[in-house]
Amino acid sequence: MGRPSVRHKLVDAALDVFEVHGFNGASVQDLTDAAGVPKGSFYNHFDSKEKLALEALQAYIARNGIEVLHDEKLAPLERLRRHFRANWKTVKDRGYRSGCFLGALSSEIADSHETSRAEFGRLFHHWSVAIAGVIRQAQADGSVAAATEAPVLARFVLNAWQGTLIRAKVVRSDQPYEDFVAMVFATLLAPPAAPAVAAPAKKVPRAVRQK
Amino acid sequence: MGRPSVRHKLVDAALDVFEVHGFNGASVQDLTDAAGVPKGSFYNHFDSKEKLALEALQAYIARNGIEVLHDEKLAPLERLRRHFRANWKTVKDRGYRSGCFLGALSSEIADSHETSRAEFGRLFHHWSVAIAGVIRQAQADGSVAAATEAPVLARFVLNAWQGTLIRAKVVRSDQPYEDFVAMVFATLLAPPAAPAVAAPAKKVPRAVRQK
Repeated sequence: MGRPSVRHKLVDAALDVFEVHGFNGASVQDLTDAAGVPKGSFYNHFDSKEKLALEALQAYIARNGIEVLHDEKLAPLERLRRHFRANWKTVKDRGYRSGCFLGALSSEIADSHETSRAEFGRLFHHWSVAIAGVIRQAQADGSVAAATEAPVLARFVLNAWQGTLIRAKVVRSDQPYEDFVAMVFATLLAPPAAPAVAAPAKKVPRAVRQK
Repeated sequence: MGRPSVRHKLVDAALDVFEVHGFNGASVQDLTDAAGVPKGSFYNHFDSKEKLALEALQAYIARNGIEVLHDEKLAPLERLRRHFRANWKTVKDRGYRSGCFLGALSSEIADSHETSRAEFGRLFHHWSVAIAGVIRQAQADGSVAAATEAPVLARFVLNAWQGTLIRAKVVRSDQPYEDFVAMVFATLLAPPAAPAVAAPAKKVPRAVRQK
């Protein structure tokens, strides 16, 4: 079996190994065992466990469905809904485990691994910018109120998503996702308020959905 | 030195050790070395590394300022602001490192340690209930719109906080906290909409505060 194959096997196996043992708890032996490759082959392909983790992270991000955010055939908010729904499906299919590899790795090693921290920063930024682009379009077409700057909304929504996946690991139910959808799509990304036309005036009318 | 002191030293040292090495990466030797106690003394006090982690977590939660949420001398939203501000100060004072021990430990071991997962669930629930109590009071006194159920808001805000602290580890700046404050206090916990009196009517009025 040629080198590319050993490399791919290591990258493929890394995600599961790091999820079970944590980055710090996973040994090179754990990684080569899971990949079914000789232990001695590891350093032919990666200078360090950190290098492998970053390559596995690139592969993870590449398949986490960021491209749907750029699908101009769909309305902006629909892209965002599908993006988080697809990510949630992956989590749910795994029994609410695993969370987001970017978030989990950041939580564990951003403080101790400077090269990784810089890479996490780039990935978070790239992801936030893609979300902000969608929100900006939704604000421009009037489907989302323009009161808050899109980049602030986008960063907050992504941070909230990370916390949502941690909570999901703990409670193993749909509740964190349902809370996220309710708060993000019905409140933070609500349409612009319009004059009340349907709702009859009440003594203390408040927070009535309009338009 | 008596047993209680060894135990306390281990609990005190545990937080820093787990933050640097992760739960899985920290050995009993790392923990006893950091505590300055004999390695052999560990199992006189704790059945496992997990037991020590859970006791360190209890100590962490006890000092993370949940009591301010119950301080009836302060307005409800002021309690919530102070709660997160105090937690943020701890993070900032540590160079934006460390995050939340509950979140970090949940992220790393909720999938693999069932006893811990149950305990994380109780702590998240307890914390959310305290936040929901504050929000409910703020909704009752009219300082927060009552459109969203307090428990949903509270869970989401706490999840968003967890993600905010992960992002802070990565970017090492005030931005995640500023985003959190802007979105939580100015938007999610905004006062009930009041009739537009100052803003002149525009062609496409939107995001106008109403009551």
